[in-house]
Amino acid sequence: MKKNCIVAQSGGPTAAINASLAGVISGILESSFFDEIYGSVHGIEGILNHNLISLSDLFQNNGDAVSRLMTTPAMYLGSCRYRLKSYEETPEIYEQIFQFLEEKEVQAFFYIGGNDSMDTVLKLSQYGAHINSPIQFIGIPKTIDNDLVCTDHTPGYGSAAKYIATTLQEIAYDAYIYPVPSITIVEIMGRDAGWLTAASALARANGMGAPHLIYLPEAPFQTEQFIEDIKNAQKEHRNVIIAVSEGVRDEKGNYISATDTADAFGHNQLSGTGKTLEYLVKEHFSIKVRSVEINVLQRAAAHLTSKTDLEESFEEGKQATLFAQEGKTGIMVTINRTSDAPYQVSYSYAPIGDIANQEKKVPLSWIAENHCDITDALFTYMEPLIQGEPEVAYKKGTPAFLEVPHLMHK
Amino acid sequence: MKKNCIVAQSGGPTAAINASLAGVISGILESSFFDEIYGSVHGIEGILNHNLISLSDLFQNNGDAVSRLMTTPAMYLGSCRYRLKSYEETPEIYEQIFQFLEEKEVQAFFYIGGNDSMDTVLKLSQYGAHINSPIQFIGIPKTIDNDLVCTDHTPGYGSAAKYIATTLQEIAYDAYIYPVPSITIVEIMGRDAGWLTAASALARANGMGAPHLIYLPEAPFQTEQFIEDIKNAQKEHRNVIIAVSEGVRDEKGNYISATDTADAFGHNQLSGTGKTLEYLVKEHFSIKVRSVEINVLQRAAAHLTSKTDLEESFEEGKQATLFAQEGKTGIMVTINRTSDAPYQVSYSYAPIGDIANQEKKVPLSWIAENHCDITDALFTYMEPLIQGEPEVAYKKGTPAFLEVPHLMHK
Repeated sequence: MKKNCIVAQSGGPTAAINASLAGVISGILESSFFDEIYGSVHGIEGILNHNLISLSDLFQNNGDAVSRLMTTPAMYLGSCRYRLKSYEETPEIYEQIFQFLEEKEVQAFFYIGGNDSMDTVLKLSQYGAHINSPIQFIGIPKTIDNDLVCTDHTPGYGSAAKYIATTLQEIAYDAYIYPVPSITIVEIMGRDAGWLTAASALARANGMGAPHLIYLPEAPFQTEQFIEDIKNAQKEHRNVIIAVSEGVRDEKGNYISATDTADAFGHNQLSGTGKTLEYLVKEHFSIKVRSVEINVLQRAAAHLTSKTDLEESFEEGKQATLFAQEGKTGIMVTINRTSDAPYQVSYSYAPIGDIANQEKKVPLSWIAENHCDITDALFTYMEPLIQGEPEVAYKKGTPAFLEVPHLMHK
Repeated sequence: MKKNCIVAQSGGPTAAINASLAGVISGILESSFFDEIYGSVHGIEGILNHNLISLSDLFQNNGDAVSRLMTTPAMYLGSCRYRLKSYEETPEIYEQIFQFLEEKEVQAFFYIGGNDSMDTVLKLSQYGAHINSPIQFIGIPKTIDNDLVCTDHTPGYGSAAKYIATTLQEIAYDAYIYPVPSITIVEIMGRDAGWLTAASALARANGMGAPHLIYLPEAPFQTEQFIEDIKNAQKEHRNVIIAVSEGVRDEKGNYISATDTADAFGHNQLSGTGKTLEYLVKEHFSIKVRSVEINVLQRAAAHLTSKTDLEESFEEGKQATLFAQEGKTGIMVTINRTSDAPYQVSYSYAPIGDIANQEKKVPLSWIAENHCDITDALFTYMEPLIQGEPEVAYKKGTPAFLEVPHLMHK
């Protein structure tokens, strides 16, 4: 009997999630422990639909494919938003999954994803234990949101943070050119956790001063105080730059900009926090006010990533294959910081039950007392994660990302 | 008497306008023709307010300052939106300007900017001729809009085009990950000319296919046809990507998304074309629809520029100083393409009166007959302009742009 394995990706994209996939593929191909490595296209749905591709065929002896994969954005294997119900509710789905895995002689299943994907790893490993299946389930974290527990930080966060800091710096240069006062509001992703918005502070490292005000969802957002904060900032700065999380909410917990729609996981879909605040600010100030939404690029900009992040993401994927060889299951790979300066980390794992459906927010002690800035401790935490610039190959003037024909079918 | 010169920047930023400034500074410092080179802070307003800085002091013998300036975004000298009235209307302003230039023993004035800045060069050179002043006025083009006449293309366009093509590619990767149909509308700058939106087609060079539909302001936008175009695209593509210019307008010439405000030059301020179309499309399709606005980053993203563009921008600045030494005035530096493959250019100049207040649009012959794509001829025109990646220095994880303390005063 063969020992094959399957890897899949799920959730929202990051610029580093393919680096973790590259780590898994490298780990498998470099060892003789496993035979075939399959990729499940569109996460767990690829297993339900029998939509696998052979990564062994695609990447073995294929020149620079692995290194191009490292800097290819979004998910090479596609994603899904499929949420497994409990096995009591839908036993037939679990039977179908395990039957297919057994048919394919799968020993280990690697799932690269965020909170919701770890919930899938948890459920599959619990069902596996329930039926005494030998198949191992291992989670590899990724999320730009940096909101997974039991790990110092998550793959994808460092690159998003670097993109946000760099674009914030460029937006500040753009705002400073006119000799008239202005207010620029930059909306940054983060429904519940403020890690991404906090990363805007890294733009200050090179002397621009901006952003002058930072609002995270963890601290209640008070409209009147916001206007006061701006007036105070104007005493020092002609062109005030504000970083605000899409998820800021008032004392009652209502989003500043809420809509009625919800995704498959019951999350409210937000947009327009920046615009909402732009209109609010325009009511109080008769100067130029604009809002900029740093959109999907903060999770997809493979042209500007953190080398530290890509290397760690790769290593987490590789470590997952080593943990699989040791027989581990029901775990997620974790990264532990052993030193800030020099920055050093080690890799380990934690039981998936401790991680799934938990959420790590920015501690209030890392938010300034006035609620419109972050503390030095948070800056120190973030700074090492954005260091280094990986080489991105270009062809015909744009990045030579790895092609994804398997995602482009009608 | 000394022979000094002044350089200033005006209009909206581009990622390449500081490369032209670097070219002017290098041209002046490397020759002994001129004595001091001043920078006027905030365009012509710096002259009216006597706000000059000595670029000789700042850049002579200052290590890598010129090369860091090359990749610094927005305007090192700041900008303004000041529009000179005719000298019949405001003779005192012209007298004030020329008196100050004479005081400073200025022989040549270099103005780096777009259409409106060339209008300033025209008016000053006309007044100079009127009063028999020996002061020379030379325009150096820059505009991401690529809408200046008498020149093959404009500095800044190639970098914006590269940024747009790259981000479009990344947005396509982001859109392709889910196994469900979707429509993504990407709004790109360009009030009247479609050059920037056309550049989205360069994303196709590396096999992504996207964008599948492209709408420029030069061709009338028909809502019903737009919906039909999407239905046709859906026959081939699960995830349809659409690039649309902010300036698209209907057969009557009304912007799809118009507002009442206007800037100092009487241009309507537009925003929300993408959002408007998103809502329209949602009325016709019950699938995922989203719009992404490529915001100020398309003009400010110095971290992702075209080497070809930066080098040409530098050269145009340098050529301006050579034309000044030849005694030219009332001109704008131009770039002439002598060959597409291999791409070759030469530099020349044209009378400013032929350029100011003119606008070069995308010829209808370069727009596909179905009005939802561009032609190969336009692709061939654009492609050389985005080639090459300049080295950007990083420090502490973000780009080490040249600091601009003179723009950060309260």
